[in-house]
Amino acid sequence: MAVGHDACLQNKLDMENARVKSTAKVDIVRDLLHNGRSEWETHQRVVGILSQDPVFDKSQRLFMTRSERYKRALAMTTRVYELAEIHNWSHKESALAINLLDEQLPMFLHAIAFEPVFTSQASPSLFSKYASLIAHRGIVGCYLQTELAHGTNVSSLETTATFIQETQEFEIHSPTLTSSKWWIGALGKTATHGIVQAKLILEDGKDVGPHLFLVQLRCLNDHRVLPGIEVGDIGPKAMGGFAPTDNGFARFDRVRIPAENMLSKFAQVTPEGKYVQPPHAKISYGGMLYIRSSMVTSGGWLMAKAATISIRYCTVRRQGTKGLDGLEQQVISYPSTYYRLLPILSRAYVFISLGRKLTAAFDTMSQRLAKGDASLLAETHAMTSGLKVLVTTTGIQDLETARRAMGGHGYSAFAGLGRLYADYLPSATYEGDNYALDQQIVRSALKAYSNLGTSLDYSSLSPTSSYLRLLSPNSSPPSPSLSSWNKPDTSIILLEWRAAFMVRERALCKGEGDASLDQRVSRAVSEAFVASSVGEMIGGLELEERERRVVGDLFRLYLLTTVESALVDLFSFGLFRSGEVGGRDSTRELRMEIKRLCEGLLPEAIGLTDAFGFTDWELDSALGVRDGMVYQRLWDAAQKEPLNEREIPDGYEEYIKPMLERGQRLAGRERSKL
Amino acid sequence: MAVGHDACLQNKLDMENARVKSTAKVDIVRDLLHNGRSEWETHQRVVGILSQDPVFDKSQRLFMTRSERYKRALAMTTRVYELAEIHNWSHKESALAINLLDEQLPMFLHAIAFEPVFTSQASPSLFSKYASLIAHRGIVGCYLQTELAHGTNVSSLETTATFIQETQEFEIHSPTLTSSKWWIGALGKTATHGIVQAKLILEDGKDVGPHLFLVQLRCLNDHRVLPGIEVGDIGPKAMGGFAPTDNGFARFDRVRIPAENMLSKFAQVTPEGKYVQPPHAKISYGGMLYIRSSMVTSGGWLMAKAATISIRYCTVRRQGTKGLDGLEQQVISYPSTYYRLLPILSRAYVFISLGRKLTAAFDTMSQRLAKGDASLLAETHAMTSGLKVLVTTTGIQDLETARRAMGGHGYSAFAGLGRLYADYLPSATYEGDNYALDQQIVRSALKAYSNLGTSLDYSSLSPTSSYLRLLSPNSSPPSPSLSSWNKPDTSIILLEWRAAFMVRERALCKGEGDASLDQRVSRAVSEAFVASSVGEMIGGLELEERERRVVGDLFRLYLLTTVESALVDLFSFGLFRSGEVGGRDSTRELRMEIKRLCEGLLPEAIGLTDAFGFTDWELDSALGVRDGMVYQRLWDAAQKEPLNEREIPDGYEEYIKPMLERGQRLAGRERSKL
Repeated sequence: MAVGHDACLQNKLDMENARVKSTAKVDIVRDLLHNGRSEWETHQRVVGILSQDPVFDKSQRLFMTRSERYKRALAMTTRVYELAEIHNWSHKESALAINLLDEQLPMFLHAIAFEPVFTSQASPSLFSKYASLIAHRGIVGCYLQTELAHGTNVSSLETTATFIQETQEFEIHSPTLTSSKWWIGALGKTATHGIVQAKLILEDGKDVGPHLFLVQLRCLNDHRVLPGIEVGDIGPKAMGGFAPTDNGFARFDRVRIPAENMLSKFAQVTPEGKYVQPPHAKISYGGMLYIRSSMVTSGGWLMAKAATISIRYCTVRRQGTKGLDGLEQQVISYPSTYYRLLPILSRAYVFISLGRKLTAAFDTMSQRLAKGDASLLAETHAMTSGLKVLVTTTGIQDLETARRAMGGHGYSAFAGLGRLYADYLPSATYEGDNYALDQQIVRSALKAYSNLGTSLDYSSLSPTSSYLRLLSPNSSPPSPSLSSWNKPDTSIILLEWRAAFMVRERALCKGEGDASLDQRVSRAVSEAFVASSVGEMIGGLELEERERRVVGDLFRLYLLTTVESALVDLFSFGLFRSGEVGGRDSTRELRMEIKRLCEGLLPEAIGLTDAFGFTDWELDSALGVRDGMVYQRLWDAAQKEPLNEREIPDGYEEYIKPMLERGQRLAGRERSKL
Repeated sequence: MAVGHDACLQNKLDMENARVKSTAKVDIVRDLLHNGRSEWETHQRVVGILSQDPVFDKSQRLFMTRSERYKRALAMTTRVYELAEIHNWSHKESALAINLLDEQLPMFLHAIAFEPVFTSQASPSLFSKYASLIAHRGIVGCYLQTELAHGTNVSSLETTATFIQETQEFEIHSPTLTSSKWWIGALGKTATHGIVQAKLILEDGKDVGPHLFLVQLRCLNDHRVLPGIEVGDIGPKAMGGFAPTDNGFARFDRVRIPAENMLSKFAQVTPEGKYVQPPHAKISYGGMLYIRSSMVTSGGWLMAKAATISIRYCTVRRQGTKGLDGLEQQVISYPSTYYRLLPILSRAYVFISLGRKLTAAFDTMSQRLAKGDASLLAETHAMTSGLKVLVTTTGIQDLETARRAMGGHGYSAFAGLGRLYADYLPSATYEGDNYALDQQIVRSALKAYSNLGTSLDYSSLSPTSSYLRLLSPNSSPPSPSLSSWNKPDTSIILLEWRAAFMVRERALCKGEGDASLDQRVSRAVSEAFVASSVGEMIGGLELEERERRVVGDLFRLYLLTTVESALVDLFSFGLFRSGEVGGRDSTRELRMEIKRLCEGLLPEAIGLTDAFGFTDWELDSALGVRDGMVYQRLWDAAQKEPLNEREIPDGYEEYIKPMLERGQRLAGRERSKL
C-alpha cells in the first residue's frame, strides 16, 4: 500500500465493488427470507420507527452497569408499548417490534412464559379474574420452575403447596435452602405475580407431584415484597449475558393463597380435598413446543447477523500478500476464511426457511390439539426437540466462528458478536438442556425403529422417521462419486442412510453404547430430517432463474458441509470408503466440491447478506456497517469509552505516580553508585 | 429425595466421599504437577500471602465497571510489589505472584512485552540509560505494533520513522487514520513510554521496513500526554474480557525523538544516515518464542481450573433417576458428562507437563543463541508455533465445554468459567493468529518433507518432524485391534502415520488443496509431536506404583481421545478401516475403550483435580469450592448483587408503576363493560 493510501476510502470502495459484483437481485432474495414483500415492508416500517427513537439508542449500552441496563430495559418496555398505541400496531407488529429491540427485557418473560402458561392452564373462573389484567400488564408475571438444586428433573422439585381444607387455601412453602426458586426471569425486581411450580400435597400428606399455582409476590401499591416471601436478583450472568434481565430467586415461608389460585384447567383439588387427575398427561406441552419451534427461526436470524457482520468485515479488511493492483488481499478471499463463513451463511438461510416450516407445523398441531386431537403431538415434539438442539448448538458455535474469523478486531466489544454470543449461550441449556433432549430424541427414534420391526410397514413413517424406510430389505446405499456431489440427492440420501444405520446401531447396543453414542445418534437423526427438508426447499424455490441458482447453491453448500461433518459416521458404516493405505485423501473430492461451490458463491456473498435486510441499528456492529467504513466506526466508538473522559486516570495520584517516583529514585541511586 | 433432606449437607458429604474414594495420593501427584515439593511449597506460601490481603479480594470484582477494574488493577500492582519487598521475594517468586493474581493487569505488558523487547534490542548506550529505570518501573512501557488496519502483516504497517540527519532525530508519524496504533495493552491510560514499530524511512526517502523506536508518551511529572501525540483507550472487549487492561490507541503527528532512541542492537542508522543491516534476520525472535512457550504452561493450568470447577460441581450436583439410596444420580456419573470432562482433565496434565518440557527446550535454545548459535531456532519455532495453536484452540473450547457441562448454573457469573473464557479468547489471535500460524507450521513441515526427499536421511529428523521417518520405504502402518488400544504406542504410531500421510498429501496437492487442508495438516503435525511426547512422559513417570498407573491412564485417555478426534483422517488414509456397508460401527472398539478408561478414572477424578492444589481464592468459583457446598455459595454470592441493595428498583416510579396502573385501569374498564 503506497504511503498516504487511504484505507478508509478503500473500505468504502471495496464494499461498493462487492455490491456491484453480486448478481442475485437483493430484493428478490430478501422477499424470500422475509416471507413476502408485505412482511418485509412491515419489518422495514417498524425498524424505521424504533431506530429513530432515542430510547432505543444503543451507543451507551456497552458502558452501562447491570442496574443501568435494567432501568433502560424498563424504559424500552414502556416506550415500545407507547409506540404500539401511537402507531396502532397489530399484535403481530408489536411482537415483531419487541423482537427487534435486541435486548433481553424482563417483560419478555411475562409475554412468553407467564401469560401463555396462565392462559392455557387457568380454570375458567381464575382466567376471568386475571386474563384482562395480564393482557394489559396491570400485573406483571414470571414463571417459577427451576430451583437451586433442581432444573431438568421437575419431579424432584422441593417447593410444596399443601391443601388446607378448612380455609380453602394452599400453603406455598420452601422447606430448604435448595428449594429456593432460582434463575426466574423478571422475578428479581419486576414481577408482581408468579406462577409457582410446587409439589401438590393433599391434606392426608399424599404428594401428587408438581402443579402450578398463581402467587402474588409484590404489593400492587408500592411494589414491596409481600410478607413470608424473600426475593432478590441472582447476580450477573457469564460474560455479561442477559444483563438487563433480573433473573431472581424466591423463598416462601408458609405463604397462603386462595385454593382457586391453583391452575386447575386439567388437574384439580375439590373443595373436599380430593385430587382429580388430568385427562391427558401431555395436554400442557403446547407452550413449550411453541417456544422451541420459535427458537429455530430466531437462531437462523442470529446466524444471519453473524454472517453479515463477519462477511462484510472480511470483505473490506485487507491483509497479506499484495495483488497486481498493489493492494493486499481481501481477507474473505482466503480459503481458511470463506470456508468458515460461507457455511454460516448457508445455515442462516436453512434455519430461517426451516423455522417457517416448523411454525406452520406447530399451528396445524395446535388447531388439532384444540379439538382434542393429540395425534400430531409426538411428531411435533420430536421435530422441535431435534431442531432446538441442532440450531442452538450450531448457532453458538457459528457466532464464535464468525467472531474469530474477524481476527483481532473481532475481540472488540464494538464488533458486536461477543454480546450476541453471551446472550445466546444459555439457549443450549434453557427450554431443555441439549444433552437431556438428545436422550429424548434417541428414545423417540428407537421407538419408531422398534415399531417398524413389529409392523414392517415402511410406507407410513412420519417425516422425522422417514429415513428408516431405507432399512427395508430391498434398498441399498449409493456409492457417491465425483460427478454426483453436485446433486443434492447424493448428500441427502447419505445423511439419511447414516441416521438409519446409527439408530439401528443404537438399538443393537441396547444399554451398552459408548459414551458419545446418544449425541451422535441424535445429531444424525436431526440432520437427516433437515437434509430432506432442504431437498424440498431446493425443489420449491419460487424465484427467478439466477436467484434460484444462487440460493440453491447456498442450500447445496449446507448439505455438503453437513456431509463433511458427518464423515466419521459415514466411514464407520461403510457409506464412504476409506482410502488405500498410503494412498490419497479419500475425502478430497467432497472437499474440493465444497471449495468450488464456495468460490462460486464468493462474489454473491455481500448480496446474500444484504438480502437479510439488516440496518446498522439492528446489527449494532462497528465491523458490520453497511458502507464498509469499519476503521472510522471503530475510531468513533472508542472515543465514547468512559476511561477517555479524563486525560489523567483515576488512580494516577494514588498508585501510578508513587510507583514512578519510587522507581526513578531507585534507578537514580543505582546510577550514582556506578 | 425425602422432604427436608438437606441437599446442602449432601453436597458436603458427596465431596467427602469422593475424596475417600480416590486412591492416588494427592500430595504425590501434586508434587509432580508443581515440579517438586519445594516449588509447591513456594506456591502455597505465596498464595497464602496474596489470598489474605484485602487488595486481592475478588468478591466485588463482578460488579465493577471497567474504570473501577482499572483502578483496582493499579492498586493490585502497587501492592504486589510492596509484598515482594516485604517478603523479599526472588524474581521468580514475584513472577509467580503476578501470575497468581488472576487479573489482566496493565503492568503485565511492561513486564512481558516492553521490557524484554527493550532488553534484547536496545543499543548498549540506550540500555545503560533506561534499563535501570525500566527494571524499577520508574517509567512504564508498552509495545506499539498493531495498527487499526494492520496486524499480522507487519511489513504493511503504515507508521513511519523518518531519519533527520540535521538534528540527528527520527520523526515518528501516523500518516492516516488507519495507521493509528490500536489494541496496545497499557497504552490507553498507564504507559509513560512505548516501543513503536514503524517503517524506517531514510533521508533519501528509502523505506527499509519496520524497526523499533523508544518514544516517550506522557510527561513524567503530571502524566499528561505529550504534544503531537493523541492517546486513548480503545473501549471494552468482547464479553467483558481484559476489562482492567487499558488497551489503547495512539496517533503521532510528526513527533521528534533522538536518533539514539532507535533500538539498534542489530540494525542501525549511522549519523550520516546510512542504513546498516542486521546480521541475522531472525535474531530477534527469541522474545516471541518465550511468550508462546509460556502459553503452553498457562493454557494447561487454565484447563486445570476448568476441570477442577466442573468436576467438583458435577460430583455434588445430583439430578435424574434415583438410585437405591433414594438419591438422584451424581451428574458426573452420566457418560455424556464424564466423557466431556475427563478428557479436559487429561489435557490439563498433558499441557502442564509439556509446558515444562518446552520451557527447558527454550532455555537451551536461548543459551545457544546467546553464543551466536541459531541452530535450534527453527526447531523451537516450529514446536512453539504448533503447540501455541493447539493449546489455545483446545483450551478455549475446553473452558466452554466445562462451563456448559454444569448446565444452568454454569451460566452464572459466579461459576467463574465465563470470566476465564472471555479473558482467554483472544489467545487464539494474539502472539500470532492461529490460522496464520497454521500456514507457518505447514510450510515448516513441507520443508522437512522436501529435505527428506532430497537427502533420504530418515535418521536425523528433528523431534517435530520425526513422524516423517515412517515414510521410509521399509515401514508400514499397523492395524489396530481391540486388544492393542490399551497400549499407548498404538495411538502414538497412528497419530504419527496420520501426520506423515497428511503432509505428503499436502505436498502432492501443491497449491490445489481443499479449503481446510492446511488446518488439518497443522493439527496432524502438532498432535503427532504431542503424542510422541506423551509417550515419553508415560515412560518417564517417576511415581509410586498406584499413582503411576492413575496418571498413566490419564495420559492414555489423552491419546485415545486424540485418536478419536482424528478418525476422519485415519479413515481417509486407510489407517482405520471403514466398516462393512450396513455392518456395525467400526469405531466402537476405540470408543468403548475410552468409556472403560473413563469409568476406571472416575473414582480418581476428585483426587486428580485436588492435586492441582487450587485454593478457593484461586478458583473464585461458587461451583468449584473445595468443600462442595455449591448451593450455599451461590446463595451467598447472590446477596451481594447491587440490584439487591434496594427493595424497590430504580425505575419503579418512572416505568413499572405507571405501566401497572394503566393496565389495571384498562382491565377495570373492560370488566365494567362486560
